[in-house]
Amino acid sequence: MQIAMIQDKIVPAKELEEIYFDRGIFFGDGVYEVMRSYNGKIFALEEHLQRFASSLSGIKITGVDIDLIRSRILKAFEAAGIANAKIYFHITRGSAPRSHAYDANLKPNFFLTVSESEDDSEAKTNGIAVSTHPDWRWKRCVIKSLNLLANVLARQEAANKGCDEAILVDEKGFITEGAASAFFAIFGRTLQTTALTVNILPSITRKFVIRAGNNIGLETMEKSLTPQQASGADELFIASTTNDIIPVVRFDEKLIADGKPGKYTKLLIQEFRSFTI
Amino acid sequence: MQIAMIQDKIVPAKELEEIYFDRGIFFGDGVYEVMRSYNGKIFALEEHLQRFASSLSGIKITGVDIDLIRSRILKAFEAAGIANAKIYFHITRGSAPRSHAYDANLKPNFFLTVSESEDDSEAKTNGIAVSTHPDWRWKRCVIKSLNLLANVLARQEAANKGCDEAILVDEKGFITEGAASAFFAIFGRTLQTTALTVNILPSITRKFVIRAGNNIGLETMEKSLTPQQASGADELFIASTTNDIIPVVRFDEKLIADGKPGKYTKLLIQEFRSFTI
Repeated sequence: MQIAMIQDKIVPAKELEEIYFDRGIFFGDGVYEVMRSYNGKIFALEEHLQRFASSLSGIKITGVDIDLIRSRILKAFEAAGIANAKIYFHITRGSAPRSHAYDANLKPNFFLTVSESEDDSEAKTNGIAVSTHPDWRWKRCVIKSLNLLANVLARQEAANKGCDEAILVDEKGFITEGAASAFFAIFGRTLQTTALTVNILPSITRKFVIRAGNNIGLETMEKSLTPQQASGADELFIASTTNDIIPVVRFDEKLIADGKPGKYTKLLIQEFRSFTI
Repeated sequence: MQIAMIQDKIVPAKELEEIYFDRGIFFGDGVYEVMRSYNGKIFALEEHLQRFASSLSGIKITGVDIDLIRSRILKAFEAAGIANAKIYFHITRGSAPRSHAYDANLKPNFFLTVSESEDDSEAKTNGIAVSTHPDWRWKRCVIKSLNLLANVLARQEAANKGCDEAILVDEKGFITEGAASAFFAIFGRTLQTTALTVNILPSITRKFVIRAGNNIGLETMEKSLTPQQASGADELFIASTTNDIIPVVRFDEKLIADGKPGKYTKLLIQEFRSFTI
């Protein structure tokens, strides 16, 4: 008899709920998004849906109706009644006995949570420390997939060092991005960040940061930095959906400028907030 | 209120079973093993447990008692009563609200299945076709982790081409291994396979294949091959726990030798079988 075991308990495999056979858990065979709302309004909903569609297509999960996903998100957001919410959702290829190759007719699994967005005011005001870690991720980070173990290990090592984010460095010695954020440096009046490739997540916040930079008169340069170059920047910050812009005041062991959030970073935070109203 | 949504259904997050918050699904934050039995006897149980312990340590999941895991495996195997069984199990870091960094005190989740080992006699007798695919996996494949999306995509593309396995090729143009197997070539009386590095899974079957090779008088060379070199081999085969040795008779578009399983491959299959009795 085909059986399964959960912790110490033996059960007939056919009695188990489908979630136990989710390809998301066997293979990380799924993609996700995180969105947030500001004061009751979801920010950049369409941009996130568009990226989600692109991730689905990237791993060839077909037949997902994005209009249906949008309506589920709105329904759940309304039901939760949280003004400043974090909305996480993923779709996996479906549930089936474990086998690498898949049946194209599997029914995708959708899962979503809505929770309170965490308060980031201290990090925003005082800045955070970051530490570098080798970029061990797979070679298609343009796809926002559930294969995030490299990110987890990097972030945890950063946390163990008292840092709030890991900055990933590729084999050639260049910074790609943060474990869960985009990474920016400011030199003079130039805002610098890595160019988008198949190895970089096309961060939506990044796009708005660049727009905010233009609005406050910064030039943009899309070019990778080495850790040494980054640690000599006038200002550093990370950007992500959940916390938009967070100043970085320590990079590995080195204080950035005077160890306080930089003036342009503060202006960018202000400018970015104007997009969310 | 914190809520979750499963397909179309909204539920309070706190009412959901822990499995929905498994870090295995959010991040692929877990490791696994596959073992099989031949005629009621589990093959290489201790080797698999040792590698599992090493994978756990590789992603810093601590506090798992390998003796307890062994006893669970034996209990489940006995309960299933399947003589030629495939035993799959994984441990994830545990269940918690989604956050990259983790609480070191999380209770790991254990999941296991026992099912019939699939019959591979046709593939073993006639050989299979394989196709190459870029190796998109993360950079610590020495860890047998649940981050397997690159493997899935490669294997599915192979399947779409009518092939049974994808042979992964790194950025430098060298074969690393199969999507779910080790890869071997025979030139004359030399058995060649990639040397083990942090990017290669330390295949247990590989170890037994090399031993079988020694027993039948083949020399071993641990050196990476290019696809061009591989397609010019006298014989090719893949090796994995579930199917031990399977001859490869077509490599991308090229027939290997006369398109039939090679003589040493057949001898290796025989020799390997003697280990499992």
